[in-house]
Amino acid sequence: MKSQIITFLIKCPDQKGLVAKTTNFFYNGGFNIISCQQYVNSIEDKFFMRIRVVSDETVALSKKQLEERFNLLASEFKIDWKVDYGRIKQKVAIMVSNTSHNLYDLLHRHKEEKLNCDITMVVSNHEKLKPIADMFEIPFYYMPVSKETKDSQERELIDLFTSHHIDLIVMARYMQILSSNFIGVFPEKIINIHHSFLPAFQGANPYKRAYERGVKLIGATAHYATEYLDEGPIIEQGVERVSHESTPTSLKKIGADIETMVLARAVSCHLNNQIIIDGNKAIVFPEPGE
Amino acid sequence: MKSQIITFLIKCPDQKGLVAKTTNFFYNGGFNIISCQQYVNSIEDKFFMRIRVVSDETVALSKKQLEERFNLLASEFKIDWKVDYGRIKQKVAIMVSNTSHNLYDLLHRHKEEKLNCDITMVVSNHEKLKPIADMFEIPFYYMPVSKETKDSQERELIDLFTSHHIDLIVMARYMQILSSNFIGVFPEKIINIHHSFLPAFQGANPYKRAYERGVKLIGATAHYATEYLDEGPIIEQGVERVSHESTPTSLKKIGADIETMVLARAVSCHLNNQIIIDGNKAIVFPEPGE
Amino acid sequence: MKSQIITFLIKCPDQKGLVAKTTNFFYNGGFNIISCQQYVNSIEDKFFMRIRVVSDETVALSKKQLEERFNLLASEFKIDWKVDYGRIKQKVAIMVSNTSHNLYDLLHRHKEEKLNCDITMVVSNHEKLKPIADMFEIPFYYMPVSKETKDSQERELIDLFTSHHIDLIVMARYMQILSSNFIGVFPEKIINIHHSFLPAFQGANPYKRAYERGVKLIGATAHYATEYLDEGPIIEQGVERVSHESTPTSLKKIGADIETMVLARAVSCHLNNQIIIDGNKAIVFPEPGE
Amino acid sequence: MKSQIITFLIKCPDQKGLVAKTTNFFYNGGFNIISCQQYVNSIEDKFFMRIRVVSDETVALSKKQLEERFNLLASEFKIDWKVDYGRIKQKVAIMVSNTSHNLYDLLHRHKEEKLNCDITMVVSNHEKLKPIADMFEIPFYYMPVSKETKDSQERELIDLFTSHHIDLIVMARYMQILSSNFIGVFPEKIINIHHSFLPAFQGANPYKRAYERGVKLIGATAHYATEYLDEGPIIEQGVERVSHESTPTSLKKIGADIETMVLARAVSCHLNNQIIIDGNKAIVFPEPGE
Repeated sequence: MKSQIITFLIKCPDQKGLVAKTTNFFYNGGFNIISCQQYVNSIEDKFFMRIRVVSDETVALSKKQLEERFNLLASEFKIDWKVDYGRIKQKVAIMVSNTSHNLYDLLHRHKEEKLNCDITMVVSNHEKLKPIADMFEIPFYYMPVSKETKDSQERELIDLFTSHHIDLIVMARYMQILSSNFIGVFPEKIINIHHSFLPAFQGANPYKRAYERGVKLIGATAHYATEYLDEGPIIEQGVERVSHESTPTSLKKIGADIETMVLARAVSCHLNNQIIIDGNKAIVFPEPGE
Repeated sequence: MKSQIITFLIKCPDQKGLVAKTTNFFYNGGFNIISCQQYVNSIEDKFFMRIRVVSDETVALSKKQLEERFNLLASEFKIDWKVDYGRIKQKVAIMVSNTSHNLYDLLHRHKEEKLNCDITMVVSNHEKLKPIADMFEIPFYYMPVSKETKDSQERELIDLFTSHHIDLIVMARYMQILSSNFIGVFPEKIINIHHSFLPAFQGANPYKRAYERGVKLIGATAHYATEYLDEGPIIEQGVERVSHESTPTSLKKIGADIETMVLARAVSCHLNNQIIIDGNKAIVFPEPGE
Repeated sequence: MKSQIITFLIKCPDQKGLVAKTTNFFYNGGFNIISCQQYVNSIEDKFFMRIRVVSDETVALSKKQLEERFNLLASEFKIDWKVDYGRIKQKVAIMVSNTSHNLYDLLHRHKEEKLNCDITMVVSNHEKLKPIADMFEIPFYYMPVSKETKDSQERELIDLFTSHHIDLIVMARYMQILSSNFIGVFPEKIINIHHSFLPAFQGANPYKRAYERGVKLIGATAHYATEYLDEGPIIEQGVERVSHESTPTSLKKIGADIETMVLARAVSCHLNNQIIIDGNKAIVFPEPGE
Repeated sequence: MKSQIITFLIKCPDQKGLVAKTTNFFYNGGFNIISCQQYVNSIEDKFFMRIRVVSDETVALSKKQLEERFNLLASEFKIDWKVDYGRIKQKVAIMVSNTSHNLYDLLHRHKEEKLNCDITMVVSNHEKLKPIADMFEIPFYYMPVSKETKDSQERELIDLFTSHHIDLIVMARYMQILSSNFIGVFPEKIINIHHSFLPAFQGANPYKRAYERGVKLIGATAHYATEYLDEGPIIEQGVERVSHESTPTSLKKIGADIETMVLARAVSCHLNNQIIIDGNKAIVFPEPGE
């Protein structure tokens, strides 16, 4: 574990001594603390921490030893935790239907090594975007779906993602509602982009409804998918000014750029271990200084 | 009508020749066109125009003559229109409850002559903000209300506003729901500030609900009040980034500044004759160059 | 000229009757006016208009006839004008060096038919981005340059662009300063993206200098190139919040997304005939309703 | 020191063990850590921390004892530090000339207890804004200045501020350049609002110059005053979109609202002990959760 950055994400009931004991744990273990971010929800008495440490050459601990020792601290404070050793890139599957802007953006960032992951595949219920996957030399899986085949298609999706050890599923404008069953198989592992400023315009046709309502700003929301449609933990949101002159068509164009930026940021925060999910909320620690 | 700016607001079915005939009407009448803004809603085939003209010394038309002549054009094109001669300041009543930021802001802009109106009175169902009205030397009317007295209080409000010839009622965080009856007396004359980004968090306690939903942006919306709560034509909206660290209390603080800016802009657009209401939408023509 | 949209861009000294006479010209000529946008600079007494008209089936005028007739009006009012018949797509050359985000973005928008133009070629003083041009099947010209060969390279560039009838040159992070001579050959036809919020951080290394200055917002600026470096007419600008935690590297990342959006919008406004250049300023008429 | 929040602001060379040892110091001293924010500038190897602790009933340390003990840690790590016990409100002087929007805003926030300070006085080189100070019942000092009396006026200002134990001087559009001598007396204690997006349009008449340059966004900057005009550490910046239609007058109006928000936020961050100054930069720790 020499000179690698290790990230711990921690949540537990708020208690005295948490910061001191946790930082001591790593300091005494021979780690240098690169950053230590906390958030205390004092309304619900909960404590959250993201701590990034680097092992120096003298650290003789194996992963197993480190985790065993940390578990002792975790039991004392009832800590729920995750660790990432930063060595292995996460495997990502992108799901799309017929809309291309998010797909282009994610594939180009990936190709330019701006997204810390391996995009393993693009999956779609339509064939239309296959040429884009081809351009970027990413395997494309065409998996059509109808009312009748929805169950079997989802089973195939589950098999596909499981067999490829997919760590993150990005729904980059996949226009099918996934079943609770499917979502349950990948908890905290599905990010969706919704083309409105949630909770406004939940559900279908948000731009048409935004036009009809005459709003002066439109937005997009990236969130984790849960069994409740468009109600999962929000990771990132963006907005842009519009005017009475906007039509559903022009809102769609303006919205495309917001969706692109919002989804890219959300995926990047996830891959960078900046997020702790707590119930229906996403705690997103900033990391501007990278 | 020498050297005064006259503003016509026009709406009608879209037809060929509208721009040419309307601008000709004023040109041939001896007016100089300062600005001529159109908006064509090509989905619904509607035409909207805001045209500002200035009479020069040779114009011998009286208001009555001008309006009679314009009516000939209006009948030809089925134009629904309004005119403002810019001479008499609109009379404004501000309604508040216990929250002061919008009141301070509107009164200070008024005092500094940044709002083109006479603020005639402040009306409240509480006495708390009377000292602010006093500071700015604006008459304050304390009109308490309870479930039992709601009808009679509204009748008194109507009498008060009517007898003072109030042109615009600004609900600057007045925390009572006005009846359809009251609203019907002042059509297109009541502006409300709602402390959320509508249609998100319609109704009560938007900041608390924004906290619970874990949104990453909060907003405020100024709209005309109609009989449907928080559903009237939107004039202006604003947003600000927030994070998981925000509490209902901090959201309220951040929100106060958004509410202040959004309401001030909306009131200014209304007073400046920039708005045409069309069904449930507000067409707001820009006027940045003043 | 049946059912095609024709756009006139007009500038002249401000005078009485301009709107009426211009709109009449088109109305009487049998055109329907789709939109008519004016801007009066009352400080400098200048008038600007963008008028979009559509010919109907009864219009028997040829282009030549239309232009001849319009010239009569133009002489009367000293109008400087341009017309676009919207039939032929403009030919665009993109110039790059080693930075890819703007190139990816423009090529993807072009491929998805979101940019109303033909991207005819990508030109670079480096070979690094050739694979991207190849992916999108756009001819790539490698034209290296050194101090010694600068003059001859520019001559070759001029030949290349002239022989291909290039209408617009987009400098999408081309890191060479073009000579006044080169720029003079393509007046109002070169758009550059500068990676700062001009006039802040004009010149080299803006992100490094933004870091050193400790700014809390960074930006990007798209402008027409003139002989004065980074001082040409500004078309579009964007900003994003940053914090003390930002490093030159993270500013570069954040900035890349701003540059991408700002350049795409500027190019789109140019191609859509929304811009009139007046001295060192760009008048950019909005077109949100498309 | 029972149940009071104590804030330490710390800067030192980056070293291993800083977080652990500092948090231990407070934990072992019987304090509960409310928040602990760090920033490591890894380019310059500097460490910054803002730590907020609350003493519980068992803490028997006096201020003096606490500070003596902390000094031991400070010597070990070469820590430069400040502490605030949050009991005594800072005394603030506001300096203005003829522009009122910032003054209204600060006085109203103060009156509504939204600014954690005592505004002790308003000082101006003009009499124009006296009525505003009177409205809010804040002592107003009229201190005119001319080229000849500049030195003596500054000496009187120094006497006035010193004798009233002023902790913070807010230049809320005070249109005189203060001498290095004056500024040297109040290091890190003068906040200025500049009406442009620094470093753009440093110096006089920024809105006029913004109009002439044809920018598409304007801004405002709050910064600490240093001997170099408009070059001190930036605390906060804001921007707003403008268009070619903007005039110097309309830019001034739009700018007034940006200035108001930006200065209020900067003053609030200062009063809330969120800022550490490092050379020419301000490290501003967020505090959204209050």
